[in-house]
Order: sequence, then structure tokens, then C-alpha cells
Amino acid sequence: MNIILLGSGRVATQLGQALHNAGASILQVYSPTQAHAAKLAAKLDCESISDVSQLRLDADLYILSVNDDALPTLSKQLSLTDRLVVHTSGSTPMSVLEHSSNKIGVLYPLQTFSHEKEVDFSVVPLIIESNNPESLNLLKDLAAKLSTKVLELDSAQRLILHVAAVFACNFSNHLYAISQALLASRQLDFDLIRPLIAETAAKVQLNLPSEVQTGPAIRKDELTIQKHLDSLKDQPQLQEIYRLLSQSIVNLR
Amino acid sequence: MNIILLGSGRVATQLGQALHNAGASILQVYSPTQAHAAKLAAKLDCESISDVSQLRLDADLYILSVNDDALPTLSKQLSLTDRLVVHTSGSTPMSVLEHSSNKIGVLYPLQTFSHEKEVDFSVVPLIIESNNPESLNLLKDLAAKLSTKVLELDSAQRLILHVAAVFACNFSNHLYAISQALLASRQLDFDLIRPLIAETAAKVQLNLPSEVQTGPAIRKDELTIQKHLDSLKDQPQLQEIYRLLSQSIVNLR
Repeated sequence: MNIILLGSGRVATQLGQALHNAGASILQVYSPTQAHAAKLAAKLDCESISDVSQLRLDADLYILSVNDDALPTLSKQLSLTDRLVVHTSGSTPMSVLEHSSNKIGVLYPLQTFSHEKEVDFSVVPLIIESNNPESLNLLKDLAAKLSTKVLELDSAQRLILHVAAVFACNFSNHLYAISQALLASRQLDFDLIRPLIAETAAKVQLNLPSEVQTGPAIRKDELTIQKHLDSLKDQPQLQEIYRLLSQSIVNLR
Repeated sequence: MNIILLGSGRVATQLGQALHNAGASILQVYSPTQAHAAKLAAKLDCESISDVSQLRLDADLYILSVNDDALPTLSKQLSLTDRLVVHTSGSTPMSVLEHSSNKIGVLYPLQTFSHEKEVDFSVVPLIIESNNPESLNLLKDLAAKLSTKVLELDSAQRLILHVAAVFACNFSNHLYAISQALLASRQLDFDLIRPLIAETAAKVQLNLPSEVQTGPAIRKDELTIQKHLDSLKDQPQLQEIYRLLSQSIVNLR
């Protein structure tokens, strides 16, 4: 399968490498910034371009892996009749691609990507969608070469999955960052809390989080909650987050 | 070293087993509920009691491992001159034990404990404190038999550490639980999000969370944020949490 990759960020890089490793042939990497396109193209052993007019028109699959807010504009620049065009966004409806081609779809990898750390794609859930059965089968086959977890969802379900991912991943990481800042304010090393973070995530690999909630809020330990709020008295936003999440723990109980 | 354990919850159970495995001699387990005391005492091969008047007075160390709000009352029931009495609470000042003995201290394991899953104590940070150098040394030696990470902190520092742990552990788990509820509302399995949770926690084992923040808030991707808020329109509390944490991500930047 011949693939053209539009984008050079974290998702494009990791997905491109996974496709390359799986034996797919990447023809071109496009990025409006030539240096970014060239960097990824070198890894994938292919041509780099920085102008959409240089796109080859004979690929089997065009993957748009750019920031969500760049998708509508990029999509309108393409006109690829009978070629499958997909995006990799969690929260963007497939329909954003309607300007690009009559054959459209989505290939959304549900994972958080670093620039540095290579991700094991074989365990990354790949969410697919298409506007026609033939393209859906093509995406199914391709996704199955990358991962053992392939799931077809419509755009509305995918959006909820993306919101769930923001809570579980982006917001959790922010709580780690708050923890980091609190420790730093007392010259305490973040290393102290790393085993706790690892164990908290490990616990829910086998259990449901609703069944393993611990801490003062679930115990309704008002004394401890008040001590914690007092200790945050100079940081009203942290107090507000503490109160809101504690209340939410009680409500979800 | 002869130890008496007062408490039979998760921390008492895991700490008792770790002490037992490390070769310490547990003389008695106390719990006001005899069945609970008996259950843990059986694991630790010792006597169980449910009345503090039955406490032996000849132990080297008395560990109070009960809920924070039960500590003041239990402490007042003890009168153990020249015997070291410690508690295992993150947020309770050492001084709560002043009624129990002239030698007091703290042995706080910074970890989240399950009833079922046994924890590898060797990587659990153990925070110690005492009101006299001799007892501090005793706690240092004991802690070093259980873990490679032993740290002396005063009660004020320990409180901040505990608050940081609530954000990183209890609140993160709650975000996982919100994620679980969102997925369940669309008949999606929590299994979908487990690799993401594992990777998010794995990332910060080598990086600082402030340096690996991802998601729409850090990108200031207002379009995606609005789509997410719209999708939560029937759940005002989740909207509020989403807004507050997104704002906090921007502020911490």
C-alpha cells in the first residue's frame, strides 16, 4: 500500500514509523515547514514536500495528521477523487474531509505520544471509520497490521472516547504537574511520588477505578480534607480543584 | 524488634506483612473489631486483641495504623512510658501521640494500598519523624529493612507531601473513574483507555509532568475544548471540572 503522510508532529511521526515498520510504503511527507517534512521523511526513507501542489496523486491512502484546527483548511486544499483520505483526530467529525475526496475516513490512535519515546503500537487501540465499506475494509486491514486492537466507531462515539482520554491522560498528567509544583515549593523531589503514580495506574489495569478509589474524600474524612485545604490557603485555584474533585468523588460514589 | 500493631486496615495489613517478611516479631494485632484483628493476626502469626487493656506493655514499638480521625481517641487510651509509639498517617502531626508516650514518632509509607494486591515495599518511600534522636535511629534502621527510600521530614513537610499524593493518586484515580463512566455511557469498554493510562504514568517516570503535558488545553485549541464541553452539556459538574483543569493547565504553563 502506498501512503502519503500530511503532517510532521508527534502523531504523524509515530504513526509514520509504525507504518514504515509494518512494511507500508510511504511515498511523501508533507509539512508547510520544509525542515519538519525533511526530518520525518528521512526517517521514513521518502520524499519531503512543503507545498500541497507537489502532492503525488497516485497514492492509495492520504493521512492528514495535523492539529485539529488546521484540518478544515488543509482538507479544502485537497482534491483527490477516488483516493482514500483520512485524518487521525479524536474529536473531529469525519465530515471535515468531505472537500478532499469522495472516499474519506478516520484512523485515530488512542494514545499519548512523545517526540522521543517510541510507542509500542501493537497495544494502541486504533479507532477507524469510513463513508464506504470498501475503504473501511482497507483501513481495517491496515490497522490490523499495526495493532491487535481495532475498533470501528462513528464520529459521535469517537468524540466521547476522546473526552474520556482527556480526563484519563491530559488531566491526570496535569494533576501530576500540580503534585510536582507542590513538592518543589518545599524542596522535595518529584522522585518521591513516582512509585505512587506508577502503582495508581497499575491498579486500574486489573480493576475498575470506581472500585479502587482511596483517599480522604471517599472516606468522607472531613478533618483531613480541612487540613489539606488549609495547607493550600495561598493557592486558591488549587483549593478550588481540591474541593471540586473531592465533591465529585463523593457524588460518583 | 518486638512490635505491636494497632489497626487492621489496608495500611496495617500491608505494613504488617512487610515487617513480618523482614523478620520483625509482631507480638499482637489490635482492632476494636475482634474478627478483623484475628484475620490479620493469623497472617502475622501472632495474638489478636480487641481491647486496649489487653495490650502488652513490653514491646519496642507500637504502630498506630488507623483512620486519621480515629488517631486522637486511640492515642488518649494509651499510656506507654518510655515505649516508642508511632502513627502511619500522612496528614496528622506527630504531636497527636503526645498523650501516649514520651517517645513518639511517625512511619508514613507513601503508597496506595489495596486489600488484595501485595505491594513491593522495597520501592515505597518511607517518611519518618521522631521527637528524640534515639527513636529516630530506631525508625531509620527499621525503615531501611523495608525500603531503599527512607526520608526524614517534619510534620509540616509531610502534610504537603500527603496533599501532593492526593492530587497525583486519589484525584488521578477519580479522573480514571470519570473516564470509565463516560465510556460506559456509550457502551464502550474501559479496556480501551487502559493502555493510555499506563503510558501517561510511564511517561513521568523519566520526565517531569510539566514537560510532557499534551492535549487541547496546552495547545490552546479552543475549537476542540468547545466540542468537548458541548459533548458534556448534560453533565454540568464534568463541564466544571473540564473548564477548571483546562484553565489550570494554561496557568501553570
